Amino acid sequence: MTNLKLATLNGNERTVVPVDSLRVGAGFTMIAGPCTVESEEQTIETAIAVKKAGAHALRGGAFKPRSSPYAFQGLGLKGLQILKKAKEETGLPIVTEVIDSRDVFWVSEYADVLQIGARNMQNFSLLKEVGRSERPVLLKRGMNSTVEEWLNCAEYILSEGNPHVILCERGIRTFEKYTRNTLDLSSVPAIKELSHLPIIVDPSHASGRVSLIPSLSLAALAAGADGLIVEVDINRDKALCDRDQTLTPSEFTRLMEKVTGLYQFMAAQQ
Amino acid sequence: MTNLKLATLNGNERTVVPVDSLRVGAGFTMIAGPCTVESEEQTIETAIAVKKAGAHALRGGAFKPRSSPYAFQGLGLKGLQILKKAKEETGLPIVTEVIDSRDVFWVSEYADVLQIGARNMQNFSLLKEVGRSERPVLLKRGMNSTVEEWLNCAEYILSEGNPHVILCERGIRTFEKYTRNTLDLSSVPAIKELSHLPIIVDPSHASGRVSLIPSLSLAALAAGADGLIVEVDINRDKALCDRDQTLTPSEFTRLMEKVTGLYQFMAAQQ
Amino acid sequence: MTNLKLATLNGNERTVVPVDSLRVGAGFTMIAGPCTVESEEQTIETAIAVKKAGAHALRGGAFKPRSSPYAFQGLGLKGLQILKKAKEETGLPIVTEVIDSRDVFWVSEYADVLQIGARNMQNFSLLKEVGRSERPVLLKRGMNSTVEEWLNCAEYILSEGNPHVILCERGIRTFEKYTRNTLDLSSVPAIKELSHLPIIVDPSHASGRVSLIPSLSLAALAAGADGLIVEVDINRDKALCDRDQTLTPSEFTRLMEKVTGLYQFMAAQQ
Amino acid sequence: MTNLKLATLNGNERTVVPVDSLRVGAGFTMIAGPCTVESEEQTIETAIAVKKAGAHALRGGAFKPRSSPYAFQGLGLKGLQILKKAKEETGLPIVTEVIDSRDVFWVSEYADVLQIGARNMQNFSLLKEVGRSERPVLLKRGMNSTVEEWLNCAEYILSEGNPHVILCERGIRTFEKYTRNTLDLSSVPAIKELSHLPIIVDPSHASGRVSLIPSLSLAALAAGADGLIVEVDINRDKALCDRDQTLTPSEFTRLMEKVTGLYQFMAAQQ
Repeated sequence: MTNLKLATLNGNERTVVPVDSLRVGAGFTMIAGPCTVESEEQTIETAIAVKKAGAHALRGGAFKPRSSPYAFQGLGLKGLQILKKAKEETGLPIVTEVIDSRDVFWVSEYADVLQIGARNMQNFSLLKEVGRSERPVLLKRGMNSTVEEWLNCAEYILSEGNPHVILCERGIRTFEKYTRNTLDLSSVPAIKELSHLPIIVDPSHASGRVSLIPSLSLAALAAGADGLIVEVDINRDKALCDRDQTLTPSEFTRLMEKVTGLYQFMAAQQ
Repeated sequence: MTNLKLATLNGNERTVVPVDSLRVGAGFTMIAGPCTVESEEQTIETAIAVKKAGAHALRGGAFKPRSSPYAFQGLGLKGLQILKKAKEETGLPIVTEVIDSRDVFWVSEYADVLQIGARNMQNFSLLKEVGRSERPVLLKRGMNSTVEEWLNCAEYILSEGNPHVILCERGIRTFEKYTRNTLDLSSVPAIKELSHLPIIVDPSHASGRVSLIPSLSLAALAAGADGLIVEVDINRDKALCDRDQTLTPSEFTRLMEKVTGLYQFMAAQQ
Repeated sequence: MTNLKLATLNGNERTVVPVDSLRVGAGFTMIAGPCTVESEEQTIETAIAVKKAGAHALRGGAFKPRSSPYAFQGLGLKGLQILKKAKEETGLPIVTEVIDSRDVFWVSEYADVLQIGARNMQNFSLLKEVGRSERPVLLKRGMNSTVEEWLNCAEYILSEGNPHVILCERGIRTFEKYTRNTLDLSSVPAIKELSHLPIIVDPSHASGRVSLIPSLSLAALAAGADGLIVEVDINRDKALCDRDQTLTPSEFTRLMEKVTGLYQFMAAQQ
Repeated sequence: MTNLKLATLNGNERTVVPVDSLRVGAGFTMIAGPCTVESEEQTIETAIAVKKAGAHALRGGAFKPRSSPYAFQGLGLKGLQILKKAKEETGLPIVTEVIDSRDVFWVSEYADVLQIGARNMQNFSLLKEVGRSERPVLLKRGMNSTVEEWLNCAEYILSEGNPHVILCERGIRTFEKYTRNTLDLSSVPAIKELSHLPIIVDPSHASGRVSLIPSLSLAALAAGADGLIVEVDINRDKALCDRDQTLTPSEFTRLMEKVTGLYQFMAAQQ
């Protein structure tokens, strides 16, 4: 891998990213929540449900990068305030996306982890700005990006002084049409042999299909991933985005049970 | 899925493909062996080694479809005779590729399973010919083929009267360069919800890297695959093809242990 | 380019492929005709129409490789006999696909050029068989094939003793959905700098849209292609396949005028 | 095309984008210049050379989005000041990239056209910001973007009130390795049938090879493009980036002659 300095695996030490009392990269981290913050009720009830099922952090979008300018763009500040309330209610740390370098500073008041979305993976100004933040960063793989390019984007963040980067595989774009994207699970062991950074998997965006999420979640865990980020919504059937790839709380509860069982088995093997 | 009649899932019944006393689709099937049959010693010793490690069938190429006409094309009939001896020695049924519709009849004397390679997935004449054979067929996914096209190729075989098709995911071609292909594990649960046919995974061709094979093997099993086909060679470092993706017998033995442990855990959950 | 011997550019001499009195690679060759031979009337009337418009050869499928076994597979021998009559009627040489190594010998009685379709580009048995034929071969690029792999397939034919290979770019498979495939016109100058073989372009299969064919045809000519192969059908709106990418005779006539004008301009520049 | 309002073709009227006295979309526009502004001498001499050859605008990067944080990132403000001098010297309007929403206002003091690079095509904050600028915008296609997504990004700019968007096809990412990207010339007629916006082509980034640029340039023109943007550098062999795809002034002069000849022929046909 050319040009990597800080993201490269150097010896066997692996980075553990602290998020409140959570430690991403030690144990298996489950991040769950709605695609988009739509209302206080939806967000807080979903947060309570995923917390009850065993999730460790809450995801939810306040700024939504949408293909069309006429699609719902998120609630912005109001969405962040709702996420803050959900944290107060449940104790779950908040993972939420930031899409503009001008917003990094004030969004950090509300976010425990700053998410960089796939479309912004190579928005280098934004990467530098979150690199100067004190918040951990969840860096999604661009949908047409190689593993090498992705690690170079992590390097952008690390080289600004922020050591807390979590990588997130969310599928790449291919010719296959049955799934929304093609989940590239080879990237999990590839990252493990190239870098010390933790890597989690997003089976929701990767597959675009509720029915595939459980199998892909177990596969991600078996491949060595450090966690999952999954879309869950208390009002799945009325959600404004991503309905086809969002779990109900009861589906998520069953997923948590399977994942927990497999994780315990695998941990016991080592 | 348009146009499928015989390959479609119809109720919950799943096909189990009998190969001698082996039943592919019931339990987890491990197929292992050299990329190419190079000599009697190499093949028989590899067969003994993979048998000892717990493999259920022996793979090995006598006809090798190579990108260049000047690359080694396989031993042909002599290779098949060696495979037959390896079977006599170990009892392992033989999985070997057929690449010409004119060869199907006589290759069936030596092969227990006729493999259709990725490059021939849409060689419809060959598909029809193996569809008229009495041997089970291992149908590899074409490296640029959708799941729908792949199932339509299975349908070509089924519609000629041969009900015994095993699908094999071996990676698709994308822009990623770290791996030889991109293993599409979403195809495993996708096939399970679309078809009754068993599906196995080839982590060797998918990744092109020995170091990634264990993780991807466990991931394939966790995703619901019915087995694996893995390249193993007693003389890995002198092999004529695919050295970078071939396991040594001792690496394969460790893989078998991990796979067996995970399989037993997963079977106990159900 | 590794491994190429006979297909490589060696000095400046370029291969001209003789097809009856036509010389592919000298001048600009227009091949036109129906996707599939459906009836004598349709084929002969289309042949007369494209001949009148200025086409140099007639294309038409008697064996159709179709994704589904239940789709129309072509008229086979009867289709070839119809093509022969069309040749008697118009003098146009016949370009038609062969899909099985067992058919090469007898199909050569009817075909002036043996077409290898995209799905069979790496059907090496078939390549070797047409390499032993005395007919020129039109080798379509596989839809997921690199230029290097494509030239290696030409090498398979050349190395069996047949020097008369015409390459045909027909688009590759990408994520773009507006077009059926993505026409890769860079392959035209790439082939010109790597090989002495002539290359033509198929804008019908590449785009899948009648409306894009004129622009892409002119672009192919400007990029240096030696000709085009275009789907034209007298009964376009009733055609069994490829209706969306088939020109009517009057659309083809207008295309011929544009192409001829541009070709004359370009030839005069040199 | 879903969701488009302002970018859609509505009747036959086509947008012409005014850039000083240049009118992009009327006639054929040639934009040329170095990949990156490295020094005053390099930039001004290149500007004089491309002006002499007939170019209509000068391109040059002051902010370079680079895969690695350790690669040269451009001269920033100093680069913009050099571009301004080059304009004073030659009269050529300046096309230069902006990569951060915070920079749009002040970069507009130096740029006549604001370029949005491929990696930022879906940086929606940046799109909205240039949508509020009074400068025309050159919107490059993302390397994994569909034509539909690209037009939706144009819609982001248009919907903020800036009607002056020039689209730029620069190749998409595929499995092909001979070229840097795969130039998708089908997008040119596709855009023409979907939108009123002008579209130009970047054969330098698309191919990554000097030897392919002339053929692809002529092909782009023949396909209906409204112009080209080409990398040219007086010191090509010492350039810090993109040496393999940069023309020398004399190569550019020959390209201008060919392009001009073909354009005049094509204009006379209509």
